[in-house]
Amino acid sequence: MSQNQTQPTLKIIPLGGLHEIGKNTCIFEYGDEIILLDAGIAFPTEGMHGVNIVLPDMTYLRENRHKIQGMIATHGHEDHIGGIPYHLKQFDIPIIYGPKLAIALLRDKLEEAGLSDRTTLKTVSPREMVRISESFLVEFIRNTHSIADSFTVAIHTPLGVIIHTGDFKIDHTPVDGEYFDLQKLAEHGEKGVLCLLSDSTNAEVPGSTPSERSVYPNLDRIIHQAPGRLLITTFASSVHRVNMILQLAHKHQRKVAVVGRSMLNVIAHARELGYIKCPDDVFISLKAARNLPDEKVLILTTGSQGEPLAALTRISWGAHPHIKIRPGDTVVFSANPIPGNTIAVVNTIDRLMIQGAEVIYGRHQGIHVSGHGAQEEHKLMLALTRPKFFIPVHGEHRMLVKHAQTAQSMGIPAENMVIIDNGDIVQLSPDSIDVIGKVPSGIELVDQAGIVHDHVMQDRQQLAEQGVVTVAAAVSWEGKLMAQPEVHLRGVVTKVERSLLQQLIIRAIERLLSDRWDEFAHTNGNGTQIDWSMVRDEVENTLQRLIRRELRIEPMVVFLLQIPEQEVSDRPVTKTYRRRRSTASVVS
Amino acid sequence: MSQNQTQPTLKIIPLGGLHEIGKNTCIFEYGDEIILLDAGIAFPTEGMHGVNIVLPDMTYLRENRHKIQGMIATHGHEDHIGGIPYHLKQFDIPIIYGPKLAIALLRDKLEEAGLSDRTTLKTVSPREMVRISESFLVEFIRNTHSIADSFTVAIHTPLGVIIHTGDFKIDHTPVDGEYFDLQKLAEHGEKGVLCLLSDSTNAEVPGSTPSERSVYPNLDRIIHQAPGRLLITTFASSVHRVNMILQLAHKHQRKVAVVGRSMLNVIAHARELGYIKCPDDVFISLKAARNLPDEKVLILTTGSQGEPLAALTRISWGAHPHIKIRPGDTVVFSANPIPGNTIAVVNTIDRLMIQGAEVIYGRHQGIHVSGHGAQEEHKLMLALTRPKFFIPVHGEHRMLVKHAQTAQSMGIPAENMVIIDNGDIVQLSPDSIDVIGKVPSGIELVDQAGIVHDHVMQDRQQLAEQGVVTVAAAVSWEGKLMAQPEVHLRGVVTKVERSLLQQLIIRAIERLLSDRWDEFAHTNGNGTQIDWSMVRDEVENTLQRLIRRELRIEPMVVFLLQIPEQEVSDRPVTKTYRRRRSTASVVS
Repeated sequence: MSQNQTQPTLKIIPLGGLHEIGKNTCIFEYGDEIILLDAGIAFPTEGMHGVNIVLPDMTYLRENRHKIQGMIATHGHEDHIGGIPYHLKQFDIPIIYGPKLAIALLRDKLEEAGLSDRTTLKTVSPREMVRISESFLVEFIRNTHSIADSFTVAIHTPLGVIIHTGDFKIDHTPVDGEYFDLQKLAEHGEKGVLCLLSDSTNAEVPGSTPSERSVYPNLDRIIHQAPGRLLITTFASSVHRVNMILQLAHKHQRKVAVVGRSMLNVIAHARELGYIKCPDDVFISLKAARNLPDEKVLILTTGSQGEPLAALTRISWGAHPHIKIRPGDTVVFSANPIPGNTIAVVNTIDRLMIQGAEVIYGRHQGIHVSGHGAQEEHKLMLALTRPKFFIPVHGEHRMLVKHAQTAQSMGIPAENMVIIDNGDIVQLSPDSIDVIGKVPSGIELVDQAGIVHDHVMQDRQQLAEQGVVTVAAAVSWEGKLMAQPEVHLRGVVTKVERSLLQQLIIRAIERLLSDRWDEFAHTNGNGTQIDWSMVRDEVENTLQRLIRRELRIEPMVVFLLQIPEQEVSDRPVTKTYRRRRSTASVVS
Repeated sequence: MSQNQTQPTLKIIPLGGLHEIGKNTCIFEYGDEIILLDAGIAFPTEGMHGVNIVLPDMTYLRENRHKIQGMIATHGHEDHIGGIPYHLKQFDIPIIYGPKLAIALLRDKLEEAGLSDRTTLKTVSPREMVRISESFLVEFIRNTHSIADSFTVAIHTPLGVIIHTGDFKIDHTPVDGEYFDLQKLAEHGEKGVLCLLSDSTNAEVPGSTPSERSVYPNLDRIIHQAPGRLLITTFASSVHRVNMILQLAHKHQRKVAVVGRSMLNVIAHARELGYIKCPDDVFISLKAARNLPDEKVLILTTGSQGEPLAALTRISWGAHPHIKIRPGDTVVFSANPIPGNTIAVVNTIDRLMIQGAEVIYGRHQGIHVSGHGAQEEHKLMLALTRPKFFIPVHGEHRMLVKHAQTAQSMGIPAENMVIIDNGDIVQLSPDSIDVIGKVPSGIELVDQAGIVHDHVMQDRQQLAEQGVVTVAAAVSWEGKLMAQPEVHLRGVVTKVERSLLQQLIIRAIERLLSDRWDEFAHTNGNGTQIDWSMVRDEVENTLQRLIRRELRIEPMVVFLLQIPEQEVSDRPVTKTYRRRRSTASVVS
């Protein structure tokens, strides 16, 4: 690909969402101007011990904060707006544009985090154009997705129009009657689109994703047939599904008790904005529901993914304070498990069944459809927009590859597309697309107390696998043990008798001190100099070897050396140490 | 269900395999005689930190070891024979009968564990009958499954015939030409079967599982079309699949390098026993393979489930010493991911693709079929055996329920079947089936050093989630700190400055000691008595509260108290302690 250095170029830098499903975050940069498209979170995978959420590496944005002109939020899903508070903690974003529902949800987030004054939130309407900066004029195009009020955007730049699909399916019979604005896409296709970035989630799936509406008759039948109480779970953010369930409850004269914070929150905002339409008296409190006959009750709950703290999961454990399953109950999973959540979901189903519930679940029931388009929809998007360049986004590697193959089958030359990873810098000119480098693209793991760095994660891994052996010993300035060393095992499995282990440890420390004290201590005109740091290291090494040999395991070994106080006073201990991660006075 | 107390009864007690897929272990007990059917292992689920294998609770067998007459192994899968060495370590099993392949694999296991002299291994042939004890005569009936040489068994008891299917599908075109012995099943059905225990793995799947042979044309095409090196992965124990791959390699003039210990082991035994038929010169060493043109090489490898240590996984990380992926390579996953392994498998696929391999995977390729029968096969089994009583086994709860519904649809009354859990005691008389109680049915977790008990698992969980803070302090008999307390953080995330934390901890300990020393120490005629155990507990509690308040986290807190030696000598420390798990001198 030729590249004319005198031409102005535009950079596209995704920080998240590539080679993964989650934390979608994309930078568009032209000259000194940056705009951001979405800033999402991902959820931890197995082995990310104690981690609650995963964020992209924000180094590049921190370093270029002065360039940031504004942000676009395409829709209100967590993997698109959940990261915004974490960005705002690190740098300013002057203005954030987004659809009404996303902005309403975001406003809550910022209030909760005490960040409301850090940016301006602005809602946009379909076909609205907003100028974020000199180089970026953004046009919002209504699309169809599992959450209501979702947008594809056309970004008008000095080099041409770039279309980012956001998340989409092409649903010709949307539940809310808000059709995909195919005319606007076609218009851009006719005028010329420089580059398309398109959602690849279902790139491996042939055909088309069924309309959300296809779920209606199946849910209708199930709700009609349920003999007693009904519990239905779905994603709180699946506004269309929730709307449908509420309307069906009304139709079948059931009152709805809503359970779970996110479900209550989304319903409140979606009703306020008109995306959910149902009379007030459909809703009932859990308490009031107890006085209704079972066949008049529908409990709408979070927990479709078997999340440990969600209401339905607690119900399945018999641990919910207000809801106990009883025979005659019907539980409906109107959601498929996300890969990674399968075990948690089927275990939840089993527990509900064991308690006597009839559970309706599984792909063959027709009670869930994806919010993302499949191969035929990808083709339609490409056919309407006719882009010169193409970048598959929002997917794991093999999905990006499949999406690229689909695009190639539609006539886009291989050299006009790039399969990229998070952090890649894509440089776009009117005639070329190239990956010209990389910005930092690791992940930041956040637990309840803050960022979890690599070495902490490694420590947690070792602690989880093998536990920790802690030994404390007080050693005098003459190299003698001043007390019986304390030995403490947590999370360790061994067949060695504990008293024997303690004896072995004491003997090993004593032997080391007596054999090698000459190396550790030197006496000269200034008195005795002791290399306490060396003592500490050597004891720790000795203990590690001893435990590996005797217990045949490799737990973390922590050795805490105690040096008597009166001697320390004229020889400040902390200054004589060679600082080393595992031996400094306070270490982590 | 009426139960005639004067009638003799038979007990069936599954210790594993119910409400789960794995560790199949079933007890049949009549009077003073017990026989065992299979003894498998399961693999750890998420959160079982550091655990390698999961075993059933063997308490009941340990307590009734004198009754054990022998064991039947139905086939050679790990979830059916992998637990046998662990049983033999705890009690004797006089004799174990099984098919040739299972016995060959078991012999290796026992040799490796040094247990060869603990039992007699005996191979059986189709239709062979063996009398294990006065009450138990066992008949082996050839069935079809993913491993070669697999049996269904008819257990002749004083109450009648009980059929246990083992693992099965009904494959009318088996790769090895060994047909399911339907005639023998029909004969038992005609004579009368008291009870059927049947494999429920695919009870949720409508229709029939395709024949293993259906995979052949698809693998044939893929092997024919691959332009360069071929890497194929499948379960090592899927003898028919491995056999097919070897024959196709021969057909397409590729030499096969086998990688992975279990793959080498199974192939060696299966060839010895005639279940795999291919000329010696199909095989080649990895080293020799390097000198062949790429299109003449097929690497058959373990790792179809993304197991971290398997060869293909290491290859995907670029970490295998002898095999590096290069463009032109084709990698074939001839296995579906077991739920729970999905993420590991797709990540492996992505890594292989990123390195340049073409990867062929997924349900739509027709390159894998299940080894377990679906609903129509369950119906055929029920139709042929016409049992009076029915127990669905080998499955998670919802599979057992589905299988029971299938049986009900075939005319077996609901009161003639039981859905049971591990440990349930099923009592069978000629006229009744009842669950009459429960034996211990927990799990035993084994890591490399031995059994992992509950409290160790809980410790590992806490360590994994939040890390550990260790504090050591030497306290004099006057209640003064004798050295600067040592503070050590591992796996802990905090925004609090480390030096500040250390100061806070020292101050808190000093304050506690000075404020409350009167409570801890009592002077009388015998000198000073100090309740060191109370000191230790109170300091630990204080530190826990401090860390929770200041760091807003709840890591494990380990406090190690050092008591000066000279005083200890006349007041042995270990005797003055109130023993408590978290504070005793050596604790785990």
